[in-house]
Amino acid sequence: MKFNIALLAGDGIGPEVINEAVKVSDAIAKKFNHEINWIPALTGACAIDAVGVPYPDETHEICVNADAVLFGAIGHPKYDNDPSAPVRPEQGLLLMRKKLGLFANVRPTFTFPSLLDKSPLKRERIEGTDLVFLRELTGGIYFGEKGRKDGGDTAFDNCVYTREEVQRLAKKGFELAMTRSKKLCCVDKANVMETSRLWRETVQAMEKDYPEVTVSYEFVDAVAMRLVQWPNSYDVLITENLFGDILTDEASVISGSMGLMPSASMGAKVSLFEPIHGSYPQATGLNIANPMATVLSAAMMFENFGLMEEGKAMRDAVNKALEAGIVTEDLADGGKAYGTKEVGDWLAANI
Amino acid sequence: MKFNIALLAGDGIGPEVINEAVKVSDAIAKKFNHEINWIPALTGACAIDAVGVPYPDETHEICVNADAVLFGAIGHPKYDNDPSAPVRPEQGLLLMRKKLGLFANVRPTFTFPSLLDKSPLKRERIEGTDLVFLRELTGGIYFGEKGRKDGGDTAFDNCVYTREEVQRLAKKGFELAMTRSKKLCCVDKANVMETSRLWRETVQAMEKDYPEVTVSYEFVDAVAMRLVQWPNSYDVLITENLFGDILTDEASVISGSMGLMPSASMGAKVSLFEPIHGSYPQATGLNIANPMATVLSAAMMFENFGLMEEGKAMRDAVNKALEAGIVTEDLADGGKAYGTKEVGDWLAANI
Ligand SMILES: CC(C)[C@H](C(=O)O)[C@@H](O)C(=O)O
Ligand SMILES: CC(C)[C@H](C(=O)O)[C@@H](O)C(=O)O
Repeated sequence: MKFNIALLAGDGIGPEVINEAVKVSDAIAKKFNHEINWIPALTGACAIDAVGVPYPDETHEICVNADAVLFGAIGHPKYDNDPSAPVRPEQGLLLMRKKLGLFANVRPTFTFPSLLDKSPLKRERIEGTDLVFLRELTGGIYFGEKGRKDGGDTAFDNCVYTREEVQRLAKKGFELAMTRSKKLCCVDKANVMETSRLWRETVQAMEKDYPEVTVSYEFVDAVAMRLVQWPNSYDVLITENLFGDILTDEASVISGSMGLMPSASMGAKVSLFEPIHGSYPQATGLNIANPMATVLSAAMMFENFGLMEEGKAMRDAVNKALEAGIVTEDLADGGKAYGTKEVGDWLAANI
Repeated sequence: MKFNIALLAGDGIGPEVINEAVKVSDAIAKKFNHEINWIPALTGACAIDAVGVPYPDETHEICVNADAVLFGAIGHPKYDNDPSAPVRPEQGLLLMRKKLGLFANVRPTFTFPSLLDKSPLKRERIEGTDLVFLRELTGGIYFGEKGRKDGGDTAFDNCVYTREEVQRLAKKGFELAMTRSKKLCCVDKANVMETSRLWRETVQAMEKDYPEVTVSYEFVDAVAMRLVQWPNSYDVLITENLFGDILTDEASVISGSMGLMPSASMGAKVSLFEPIHGSYPQATGLNIANPMATVLSAAMMFENFGLMEEGKAMRDAVNKALEAGIVTEDLADGGKAYGTKEVGDWLAANI
């Protein structure tokens, strides 16, 4: 097959980890006889520096016409202490999600046997954890009306959801549950929020279309607790944008493998794949960033194209590297630490 | 001294744990020569059953005229699967918070040396954890306008904050930080929400009045992660209502002592003290509920009256009981489990 992939390296360590994911993906393409045409485009702080906006129209054109987007990370410390600066990298992220219609953020959290002891949680609590969050990504309080009144002394953010927005996300959740253990947890705050009550009644009404799926409804505060207590009791979880932001980050650290966690954002047409870690500015240019989460994001991309064998080959290479100790310093644990490039080379050579 | 304390036992195990807290408080009153006049009042599911509303006017009258409120728990399973039922116990809770002006919810999370191994987290991660959340409790998305449009197909919840609401909460945070390690963390989502930007700018403007306090600003998703990774890196945290709901519950499980965690809700005049655990309906009437969190809530009440020695005497009794193994089944760990009443008796006898 032939693919056009928009390559949004972004800021910080973004370009370095993206480089390695490209290297490993090219090895896959070679082995399985595909052709990948990588199309680089600007986004984030580097786009602000270059053209004044974090998600330029040219970048959007490239993304919208590509078969998929592979994304690194965005963010730069110079924007960190001024969240109300007129132009900020995060705005690019939100605009990109909205304009590409990326309404479903898929965030798996799983454990690697060789990394179990890296978790802040006790081994017996996390063993076997393999859950996936489906976070709604283009609605809710992120995109509702917001502003000031009373000369700036009152601020508001409106959280809005339509039934159709809930349905399309929940549909992906039910479908995913059908391919896994057929357990779906809908996370909301229906004892307080009207949007949550809409979520709950919408999902309840869909249950009859998926008679094999067992659905549970839990309040977001209870899930924040149980994720730490018994993460392996969850399978597929669906939730709205803000709850998903908080809970997926919480979930990402329980496995102890945060530097390895990939994600996908699915939309109407094009999908986007990115590691969940950020731009990690302090590590920029040092050849120490862990490229594995980005490689695993590329694996999700292949699988999303229906190329399961290709995805599996990438995952197997990562597992092999972990077992062989071919890892960056975050995982080296006093042992030898390899560079970003060296890990990428090893993975490509082992495809 | 002479006190009138409104006694809201509530539902489930509420009455049982409240009984023991009364017993231990009476022992304190006797020892330190105080007089406590307990005034029982209805709230929660039992109030709905009795008079049709979860927070009756008579109860409010009693609370508003008392020196403090001691609260058990509310909630009953018959309301759990119907969050949109016209009358629900939680509405009583929200109404009570609003009408009593309880804008600051104080939720400490700390470890008991003898219970460290109960935590889902590894010992070295939680040792020394001693943090306090100040959660705003009468504003934000809980109390903003909410409803439906488009014939029910669109739902909305408005999150609103005024500068003054932020100031009065933050003031308590700065003051608390001054009595502790002088570290204050303001938790928000200022990269997305306008209310968060108001929070951040308001707290920033107050920094000059507390030159000794070091303030950090962190996004709620990052805090959800770091709470699991390094809970002992936090001291005082201030945050808005919904973030506080999620994060305080998350924090409560990391110590492994959730059944021991007290809380206070402070307002303009009267303050309310309650254990953070819920009504635990399955345990109702079985004499197995752990009364210690309620006893420690009563200790916070005495301390709030400025009676530090009295508070300390209650805490010391709880520590002694833990060390002596005079505990309910949740903490018995295969050893002998005492009943709710027996633990209360032991604590009262050891004042
Ligand atoms: C940077 C920020 C706007 C973003 C979000 O809140 O969605 C990030 O936290 C994420 O989860 O991708
Ligand atoms: C019962 C519910 C409305 C309440 C809240 O969300 O405030 C509870 O979770 C709490 O934290 O006291």
